[in-house]
Amino acid sequence: MAAALKNDRLLRALRREPTDCTPVWLMRQAGRYLPEYRQTRGRAGSFMQLAQSPALATEVTLQPLDRFDLDAAILFSDILTIPDAMGLGLRFAEGEGPRFEHPVRDEAAIRALSVPDPTAELRYVTDAVREIARALDGRVPLIGFSGSPFTLACYMVEGSGSDDYRTWKRMLYSRPDLAHRLLDVNARAVTAYLLAQIEAGAQAVMVFDTWGGMLTPDNFQTFSLDYTRQVIAGLTAGIATRPGLQSVPVIAFTKGGGGWLESIAACGADAVGIDWTTSLHSARSRVGDRVALQGNLDPMVLLTDPATIERETKRVLADFGHGHGHVFNLGHGIVPATPPEHVQALVETVHSASVPYHRNGG
Amino acid sequence: MAAALKNDRLLRALRREPTDCTPVWLMRQAGRYLPEYRQTRGRAGSFMQLAQSPALATEVTLQPLDRFDLDAAILFSDILTIPDAMGLGLRFAEGEGPRFEHPVRDEAAIRALSVPDPTAELRYVTDAVREIARALDGRVPLIGFSGSPFTLACYMVEGSGSDDYRTWKRMLYSRPDLAHRLLDVNARAVTAYLLAQIEAGAQAVMVFDTWGGMLTPDNFQTFSLDYTRQVIAGLTAGIATRPGLQSVPVIAFTKGGGGWLESIAACGADAVGIDWTTSLHSARSRVGDRVALQGNLDPMVLLTDPATIERETKRVLADFGHGHGHVFNLGHGIVPATPPEHVQALVETVHSASVPYHRNGG
Repeated sequence: MAAALKNDRLLRALRREPTDCTPVWLMRQAGRYLPEYRQTRGRAGSFMQLAQSPALATEVTLQPLDRFDLDAAILFSDILTIPDAMGLGLRFAEGEGPRFEHPVRDEAAIRALSVPDPTAELRYVTDAVREIARALDGRVPLIGFSGSPFTLACYMVEGSGSDDYRTWKRMLYSRPDLAHRLLDVNARAVTAYLLAQIEAGAQAVMVFDTWGGMLTPDNFQTFSLDYTRQVIAGLTAGIATRPGLQSVPVIAFTKGGGGWLESIAACGADAVGIDWTTSLHSARSRVGDRVALQGNLDPMVLLTDPATIERETKRVLADFGHGHGHVFNLGHGIVPATPPEHVQALVETVHSASVPYHRNGG
Repeated sequence: MAAALKNDRLLRALRREPTDCTPVWLMRQAGRYLPEYRQTRGRAGSFMQLAQSPALATEVTLQPLDRFDLDAAILFSDILTIPDAMGLGLRFAEGEGPRFEHPVRDEAAIRALSVPDPTAELRYVTDAVREIARALDGRVPLIGFSGSPFTLACYMVEGSGSDDYRTWKRMLYSRPDLAHRLLDVNARAVTAYLLAQIEAGAQAVMVFDTWGGMLTPDNFQTFSLDYTRQVIAGLTAGIATRPGLQSVPVIAFTKGGGGWLESIAACGADAVGIDWTTSLHSARSRVGDRVALQGNLDPMVLLTDPATIERETKRVLADFGHGHGHVFNLGHGIVPATPPEHVQALVETVHSASVPYHRNGG
């Protein structure tokens, strides 16, 4: 019973259909750079208590939309909800990033993993999606998301963020059989999780492969992209067998994956996220019309000043150039030090300066 | 008065001349993974006291050569000696990485910078080069090095290592004029520093652009590669005007620079360092015979086991394939947790398994 969409720029751009201007949303647009977020976060207690409360998750998901003319909402949640639901015990220590109480490091731990039921252990996420969709009432589309099977495994084996994920990489190199077993469970879990988000009202989904870029080209294919492909194929199959469910666009984003764009563009995704180290112009010439592109302003630009932000935003628009299929975003998440008025300058510039690129059929 | 080289594999490979097998050396081959290094380091007091003592720097430079059949020595020093000599006050806090007491953050600080005299403030480095060259006595060539002008600036402005170098990036975006002024001083300083190392006996030099890979493609050209190019042109000009000095091969390495290989290969360097995220096969097909290639085993492979190390080393050799112009190395520095016997397995595999790739004129 989804409300009719009042702003369908994002969905049209993801399908490479004409729009009046370039749609824009920002990774981590609901977050610590907003004082109202920090207030809600304070009331919630911990980060996980915030993410696990559908009412509060709805509140913070909508906060950036009340300030800025963004073309999408993205579910407020964390990429590590799945391993938490698998029993690994996710904790966020202040100023430290995520940490698992029970990382999986040996054969026994990996064999003991099973796919969490998204309507049970992850019910708080689908409840949040439903509540956000209701609150949005068709204002803009809602994006659901998950970490990629590979990126989830990085944290699950390492137990936390890392510079080099050495424990996990050691497993990839010396026990590829174990690594594949873990990745297969993750891929099935991500598929079920994203399907549940779509059933609950997500109108697009994004797979965040934050760490795939640290792999060798062969290992990226084998340990990361193959499993993202499995997820996307699983979504298509799952949607086909569930009456009333409609296909939604999928965005695949591998930070540092610029070298492998051609293969990422062929993984079944409708759109590919690009970080700022790859030019949108060259990306377009490499992948042609196969996919839409999402990106790619350096988040550090938002720490400068409105004039610089306007100039650099226009540079990104010009780099993509004429035509459709561009979703403006940062090349990675917005940082907490960003002044909110700088986001205002960015969003306004995208909408106004992109109009000429969409004229005359693009 | 350099001694005749007994092992010239490295220099021949850097010039893409035939060799009997593939030469190998490792970034940070003299370092904390060796117990004898940790012992010398303990005697020296601080890291800087070790680097500033020509006798101790010579001792640790030679340590890995006494264990392994490596084809090159690399000066034991730090990439941040130049800014230290400029008066920024380099300190290494235990477990923290480098830190400058006086980072340069404003116009006045940048205007006050001048090029240090390599025969005065950096005399300890050229003394070390001379002493190492004497101790090597032609056993293998000695590689000198410096941080790139851009990478030096990252630390000089930020004051320490960083995930995103936001202070420096903010300057790049909003005050490019200041950034260029700083980079120009750095380029002149690096040129004078490397020339002094060559005069003292370095037989090849490497420019480490550790952080260039975090830039946009345009900014990489403008703020990093242009200054590396200026350094290399300055070396050529400097060598031409100094009687008795001979040209030495230059290796340019940008971590994460795989997307820009073509332009890096055209910067004047004889060889380009490649990290493990780019395949040597694809690199070769992109840059042709313009430069030699150095790399690119993932340092994490050295944390596994000898059989895995042998398999992955052979994979890198096969990836480069037949012919000359390959210098085997890691894709980044060796990590302290590496067991020394794993390095042994790597070096032996490179020498034995590469022979077939060098037969029949390559």
